[in-house]
Amino acid sequence: MSAIAGPSGPQPTATYDSAFLRACRRESVPHTPVWFMRQAGRSLPEYRKVREGIPMLESCMRPDLVAEITLQPVRRHNVDAAIYFSDIVVPLKAIGIDLDIKPGVGPVVENPIRTRADLARLRDLTPEDIPYVTEAIGLLTAELGETPLIGFAGAPFTLASYLVEGGPSRNHEHTKALMYGDPQLWADLLDRLAEITGAFLKVQIEAGASAVQLFDSWVGALAPADYRRSVLPASAKVFEAVAPYGVPRIHFGVGTGELLGLMGEAGADVVGVDWRVPMNEAARRVGPGKALQGNLDPAVLFAGQEAVEAKACEVLSAAADLEGHIFNLGHGVLPSTDPDALTRLVEYVHTQSAL
Amino acid sequence: MSAIAGPSGPQPTATYDSAFLRACRRESVPHTPVWFMRQAGRSLPEYRKVREGIPMLESCMRPDLVAEITLQPVRRHNVDAAIYFSDIVVPLKAIGIDLDIKPGVGPVVENPIRTRADLARLRDLTPEDIPYVTEAIGLLTAELGETPLIGFAGAPFTLASYLVEGGPSRNHEHTKALMYGDPQLWADLLDRLAEITGAFLKVQIEAGASAVQLFDSWVGALAPADYRRSVLPASAKVFEAVAPYGVPRIHFGVGTGELLGLMGEAGADVVGVDWRVPMNEAARRVGPGKALQGNLDPAVLFAGQEAVEAKACEVLSAAADLEGHIFNLGHGVLPSTDPDALTRLVEYVHTQSAL
Repeated sequence: MSAIAGPSGPQPTATYDSAFLRACRRESVPHTPVWFMRQAGRSLPEYRKVREGIPMLESCMRPDLVAEITLQPVRRHNVDAAIYFSDIVVPLKAIGIDLDIKPGVGPVVENPIRTRADLARLRDLTPEDIPYVTEAIGLLTAELGETPLIGFAGAPFTLASYLVEGGPSRNHEHTKALMYGDPQLWADLLDRLAEITGAFLKVQIEAGASAVQLFDSWVGALAPADYRRSVLPASAKVFEAVAPYGVPRIHFGVGTGELLGLMGEAGADVVGVDWRVPMNEAARRVGPGKALQGNLDPAVLFAGQEAVEAKACEVLSAAADLEGHIFNLGHGVLPSTDPDALTRLVEYVHTQSAL
Repeated sequence: MSAIAGPSGPQPTATYDSAFLRACRRESVPHTPVWFMRQAGRSLPEYRKVREGIPMLESCMRPDLVAEITLQPVRRHNVDAAIYFSDIVVPLKAIGIDLDIKPGVGPVVENPIRTRADLARLRDLTPEDIPYVTEAIGLLTAELGETPLIGFAGAPFTLASYLVEGGPSRNHEHTKALMYGDPQLWADLLDRLAEITGAFLKVQIEAGASAVQLFDSWVGALAPADYRRSVLPASAKVFEAVAPYGVPRIHFGVGTGELLGLMGEAGADVVGVDWRVPMNEAARRVGPGKALQGNLDPAVLFAGQEAVEAKACEVLSAAADLEGHIFNLGHGVLPSTDPDALTRLVEYVHTQSAL
């Protein structure tokens, strides 16, 4: 792969010319780039080892650990991008929201946000609130060489769901009660969260992230009309905040088949697709001018190498006519996944797509 | 509403001519019929009272309790149909599978089914295995008058998921490992479950159920190609088993936007739609010749009467051109729903649709 001239900015030329960033820009690639959502984390024994005895949020605030955990899957799997190890609630913790990540439960917010008075607790995020992010990314870009680092943030709807419910929720009833019942308070809440999220991503880009992914984990719980009215403006504000940097902006949520077009409209350069919608159908819904990322069912990795290759081949075939394709799972790596199955999958996609 | 001649069979004429059954058959109706998935159950104080101290599975096997619980929402809400109170795993328990429903967890299967040898444990279901079903439905049809009773069963994929995982699962990895990794064993497992499910529904129809709903709760976890290959044949077998009775067959799963057409193809007369897909778009996907059921987001019921009516009105508008529409939620009633909100919703839909 030859290096081409990149824009001025923090990216070294070799990174700018990586298969991952080229695919994000819908340029030709030597092979389909691959990375995995949640590649840094629970499926790796070396991750469990370094996390031993260290609570989740603490691990997100220790630059040495963040760098080590982010690098582990790059070393092991030969993936085409690193994803910054963090948690969706890190920026909320950083501005002083009283929350914790409880093992086996997820983020728990001591005092949920449900009234206009509660909004005052969502103050602006400044770089000084998250020195560990800048430091960790400094460590990472030095180590990663030409492998791009993807910045990470949760999208306003998903953050709002944690804040309003007070923790993970299957049905999001308090969140939706607020959204449907008090649209102005809801809009103001999401706007606040968009400011915070935009600031969180800016810090990551200024420190050296070459792309960002905005995770809207729970937004698949909404119908398109509600997404357009109640979520899209805030997500668009996040994407606008980082637009001046010119780095690719990826947007993903699970169960978002009905929302793919709108998630692109919100300002994503790359739309992530879960496994429920074939890639060619996803491309039709998203329309031209966007790359797509996805979409092997993470559960396929439990079915043996033959099945994995057959399904990965189906994904590559369905994505063959895309303007830009980044291979990924259709959701995060499941905790009990065999890491070797992931390594073999990277090799398979690289080999198969280079033919 | 005037009574018209019905077919020979267990239905009294007034029932045959009810708004619910007319809508299922895509005939004209005096108002849009309404019922709610999980209307019989946890949201009602009178339900919690009669269930006090009685384990879930035991309550499903006591005809007096089944009848009382099934009738409670009919008395309270003035819904257009009753749904037989049961649980998806009842027919599995009836053939001797060692399972229990644990409060706060769901069905737990002592020894999961994962090998060919395990299939032998799935023997045929006979009417003698479930005398309480016949007895409960006898009590019910005597009480219900012209209100139709909908029979209830879980679909083969969802039953398989419980059996293979050993309990509720978010990611269905063991189920999918079997489905992708050993397609023949999977097909044989689903075929066995289709036999059992068909037999379970037949007993309900012969006892007096005027319609049946086949719930495939988890099937939204699959992509369309996998549904077609690995699930549709078994679901079709269930629908074929009850076809000779001529009662409407409803099919529902949550998160099934990509599967609606295929779920119709499987043999449903009525396709249930969750709230993620607008009813008119669902009609486009299902195609002509089917009625549709749905699709108010159950979380909307937490947002106050004004919001509920606005969203219910959106559902009715989107369904205005349907051949047949049964108003329902897009998923089951959430446990903490205010029962009065449901009663008011029924009244709103009846009034609004009769204009």
